[in-house]
Amino acid sequence: MEKTLDKIRFVDRTRVPEIKAHLDDLTKPQGSLGALEKMALRYVLASGELNPKVGAKRVCVFAGDHGLVEEGLTFSGQEVTAQVVRNMLSGGAGINVFSRHVGVDVEIVDVGVATDLSDADGLIDRKLQWGTQNIRKKPAMSRETCLQAIQVGIERAEKAASDGIRLLATGEMGIGNTTPSSALMAALLPCAVSEVTGPGAGFHEPGLLAEKVKLIEDALALHADQLSDSIAALAAVGGLEIAAMCGLCLGGAAHRVPVVVDGFIASAAALVACRIAPAVADYLFLSHESAEPGHAVFAREMGLDPILHLGLRLGEGTGAVLAMTLIDASIRMYSEMATFSSARIANPPLNQRCFPVL
Amino acid sequence: MEKTLDKIRFVDRTRVPEIKAHLDDLTKPQGSLGALEKMALRYVLASGELNPKVGAKRVCVFAGDHGLVEEGLTFSGQEVTAQVVRNMLSGGAGINVFSRHVGVDVEIVDVGVATDLSDADGLIDRKLQWGTQNIRKKPAMSRETCLQAIQVGIERAEKAASDGIRLLATGEMGIGNTTPSSALMAALLPCAVSEVTGPGAGFHEPGLLAEKVKLIEDALALHADQLSDSIAALAAVGGLEIAAMCGLCLGGAAHRVPVVVDGFIASAAALVACRIAPAVADYLFLSHESAEPGHAVFAREMGLDPILHLGLRLGEGTGAVLAMTLIDASIRMYSEMATFSSARIANPPLNQRCFPVL
Repeated sequence: MEKTLDKIRFVDRTRVPEIKAHLDDLTKPQGSLGALEKMALRYVLASGELNPKVGAKRVCVFAGDHGLVEEGLTFSGQEVTAQVVRNMLSGGAGINVFSRHVGVDVEIVDVGVATDLSDADGLIDRKLQWGTQNIRKKPAMSRETCLQAIQVGIERAEKAASDGIRLLATGEMGIGNTTPSSALMAALLPCAVSEVTGPGAGFHEPGLLAEKVKLIEDALALHADQLSDSIAALAAVGGLEIAAMCGLCLGGAAHRVPVVVDGFIASAAALVACRIAPAVADYLFLSHESAEPGHAVFAREMGLDPILHLGLRLGEGTGAVLAMTLIDASIRMYSEMATFSSARIANPPLNQRCFPVL
Repeated sequence: MEKTLDKIRFVDRTRVPEIKAHLDDLTKPQGSLGALEKMALRYVLASGELNPKVGAKRVCVFAGDHGLVEEGLTFSGQEVTAQVVRNMLSGGAGINVFSRHVGVDVEIVDVGVATDLSDADGLIDRKLQWGTQNIRKKPAMSRETCLQAIQVGIERAEKAASDGIRLLATGEMGIGNTTPSSALMAALLPCAVSEVTGPGAGFHEPGLLAEKVKLIEDALALHADQLSDSIAALAAVGGLEIAAMCGLCLGGAAHRVPVVVDGFIASAAALVACRIAPAVADYLFLSHESAEPGHAVFAREMGLDPILHLGLRLGEGTGAVLAMTLIDASIRMYSEMATFSSARIANPPLNQRCFPVL
């Protein structure tokens, strides 16, 4: 991990003017491709490729269980985590469908599912623990296990980089995992628990949200002495799949493979990574505005604009994979669009380089 | 045209419950794929295909010029319309890049460019007039020419349907064409000109917007006796490419090929089509929220949710083509995701069919 952190550098912002000059020379009114222009700028800076090409993409889906499910606030039990993992392995989950559509490799990593999956074909077995402990009563995991889970994410980023992957996405599956995500957001932003706690993937039921907030407040009070250090906080109130996604962000940044952050849970992982190494933020894309209310708080804090606004709240990496195709579109815009001179279009002074005002 | 209008029917809403039941049986918490679920529902209803597949796509880009450019409120002259058309024909424009990315045919149709393009390879020549007349002084075109321009759009939709296209998009190019679009919106919504008038693709310059509003108000006053009839309004204050896009919407609806509406200008065309035949709205997708302020007024009036929110204001069909890949994703979600029973995931009662609340 130390070696990885040593490699993470802020992007070279001195290159912004030349990148913007190229964007403004493309045959379109200045700025008229809006967020796509910002995405291209971000990709070029993060990848360091001044002539970027659309490259291979991969989503790493980390699965883990959560001891807090015993608190009875979930509709589903932990067994559903394993069922969904098997659905992913057989190609029928949302993440598989969208990945096939966009042309993204899917890799599924067990970092802590509480069910035996040793017979599951195609699963990458990095199980460190059979689920976390109930954060209302104990730390989710030891610091050592937390570091190992982060290392799993770093390992997958390194594997991706060596496989030639040029854009990574985070994915996750774990019944109950919006709760540790809200706990991490509240601890690290920091902010009130109620600001970053929502209904999760389930239904709105009166009273349930208040119980969830109380559970998180209890956990944060119990582990109060751990919350000033990001890794200690992740070990105390986080999750194994969240730690692994944090590692993926770190590893992606170290290898200059930009990482598309999925939804609320992935954002909690990205937040930890940015607290460990602030330069990581330069390598992240925020894929979508999650329906989970805490996500907007995170986006504002990080200064990241969500790419999609589709009211998604499935997780798995689904939003990240869909956003990848728009990032690819922005790369192709940057590298394939004609320039004003090449297209022989009437070429006004740079500050008037546009077509109509009407 | 009469034959086309006879074929346009409202979609069969009695099928909504069975489509929703299928969406709720997919292995995800109910409603957790947000707008994608609504898109799938809309596509299934519009296409009439209960087992929809991702099919061939085409964007029809209609180009035409505008006599009002002589008013001097544009940065570019009419010659730029032809230059951009040539850029599109050589594959270097934004619409070409995004269409290659998403896998969409591009067809470029001259319905009224004020420059000779008879030597342009690959252009579909349906030039009806060398640009419209200046709407501040005269009708943009005669009613007969307007009907012919609509017919060009219908013809392109019919060609697409017979070519096996399953999803169409509107595109346009015409220096000055946000002005007639604002005029049509103001006339047909109806609403105040200032509510639906923005800076267009150009820059914000103090005073210019007020002059543009005044120009539109003058035009609407001059042609006041034409505005109660949609086709008369289109002939008086519209544009040739706007009329053709209106025809594409009519033809798409008649042949049950859903049409993805690009930005502000395309929305003005779609509005005319819906005023001619209200059922057309059932066959439209609104691709993106344009940076042009009048677009939001239109979206609200039509009850259409824009798919993308990227601050686009280029036109050409760029937003429509990018939205097409998300519509395709929704179709694949509908047809390829596993169902709860097939995936052997713990299957709670329908009203609790979800994974976690946490």
